[in-house]
Amino acid sequence: MMIYELLGADDRRFSPFSWRAHMALAHKGFEPERVPCKFTEIAEKVASSGQARVPVLVDGDRHVADSWAIACYLEDSYPDRPSLFGGDPGRALAQFVNAWADQVLQPALAPVIVPDVYEVVHEDDKAYFKESREARFGRSFDDLRAAQATAAKAVDAALAPVRAVLEERDFLSGAAPLYADYIVFGSLQWPRCTSAYPILREGDPVTSWRDRMLGLFGGLAGAAPARAA
Amino acid sequence: MMIYELLGADDRRFSPFSWRAHMALAHKGFEPERVPCKFTEIAEKVASSGQARVPVLVDGDRHVADSWAIACYLEDSYPDRPSLFGGDPGRALAQFVNAWADQVLQPALAPVIVPDVYEVVHEDDKAYFKESREARFGRSFDDLRAAQATAAKAVDAALAPVRAVLEERDFLSGAAPLYADYIVFGSLQWPRCTSAYPILREGDPVTSWRDRMLGLFGGLAGAAPARAA
Repeated sequence: MMIYELLGADDRRFSPFSWRAHMALAHKGFEPERVPCKFTEIAEKVASSGQARVPVLVDGDRHVADSWAIACYLEDSYPDRPSLFGGDPGRALAQFVNAWADQVLQPALAPVIVPDVYEVVHEDDKAYFKESREARFGRSFDDLRAAQATAAKAVDAALAPVRAVLEERDFLSGAAPLYADYIVFGSLQWPRCTSAYPILREGDPVTSWRDRMLGLFGGLAGAAPARAA
Repeated sequence: MMIYELLGADDRRFSPFSWRAHMALAHKGFEPERVPCKFTEIAEKVASSGQARVPVLVDGDRHVADSWAIACYLEDSYPDRPSLFGGDPGRALAQFVNAWADQVLQPALAPVIVPDVYEVVHEDDKAYFKESREARFGRSFDDLRAAQATAAKAVDAALAPVRAVLEERDFLSGAAPLYADYIVFGSLQWPRCTSAYPILREGDPVTSWRDRMLGLFGGLAGAAPARAA
């Protein structure tokens, strides 16, 4: 098994979607070969799979792109290994969390950290990244940086439903972590690996949960170099 | 078993939180006595339970307030009846949906429909309702009504994660409805019973799901008089 994932400067791997997939693979007991891929080489390296984005999981002759599809593929192909969803209702509601993370949490995080992400994208990707992201936001990185504190408040507010669960439970999925935890964790590993901005507050149950997540699977995610505390 | 619930004009019952509880009770096979209660008599009628808000479920000598607490009480007290959560992960993620509905969906819906809700609150509650709601929003009902179409667009956007699941599944909880469905349904039964404004679009999977929900339990929720189509 191997997985194509985004490569940053100094061998950094910060993609939120790759982290969702890594945690899901570890949960199922797999340690795939991690094949790094710069933004600007995705088309060339992963083209054979017909995919335009990473992560792409390669399992024998199967290519699976998109982190949600990878989680479903692992659950359906390896049902005898620990479940990622805990049943049909758990899978449907994890899909709700996935859509919420993609449509609410990621867009809240992006303007806070994208100028910092720029500092850790691979040297070869910098021009592409700056141009495409400033166009996407319709604002320069300098303007985004000036509004960073305000944008961070929106992240804190967006995390309210996550916080409500973690005030009463150890994990978003209840007593033990499942894929819904890996979804939200992936989104928070992204700022941890790219930005020194303090997205998470001390004393917040979200922060203690994030720290528990860093320790899972022998500290798999905790071993990734952090820029934030 | 009996449940105190909000009473509107012409015997209307439109509280989103009461609808969550009604659907949960029906799912468990209960048909409690429904005791109507105007806004301005909650303190007096429900005071013995120490509660300041409805719904309040009374089961023997137990008083349970808050729709989420009612669902958990039913699940824990009647484990041999059909499950509302489908296990621990399902319960934890339903709590996520509950927090999301309370913190995102309800606040998006409120400014769209509150001036219409005013028309169907009980005559005795009208003065209280207008004063308290205009104070809460810091805007008059006339101002809210003028911004109704813009506010409705925010509801449509907020429903995106619900839509993502329903594009692939019959119910938010997967193949069959569970409490997460009743949470979001309760929020959408509220505009259906109070406002003629078309919150839901034809052709939207959210709309067909809402219609399936209206038919559950012998058309329990569909029998409530609608103001919207």
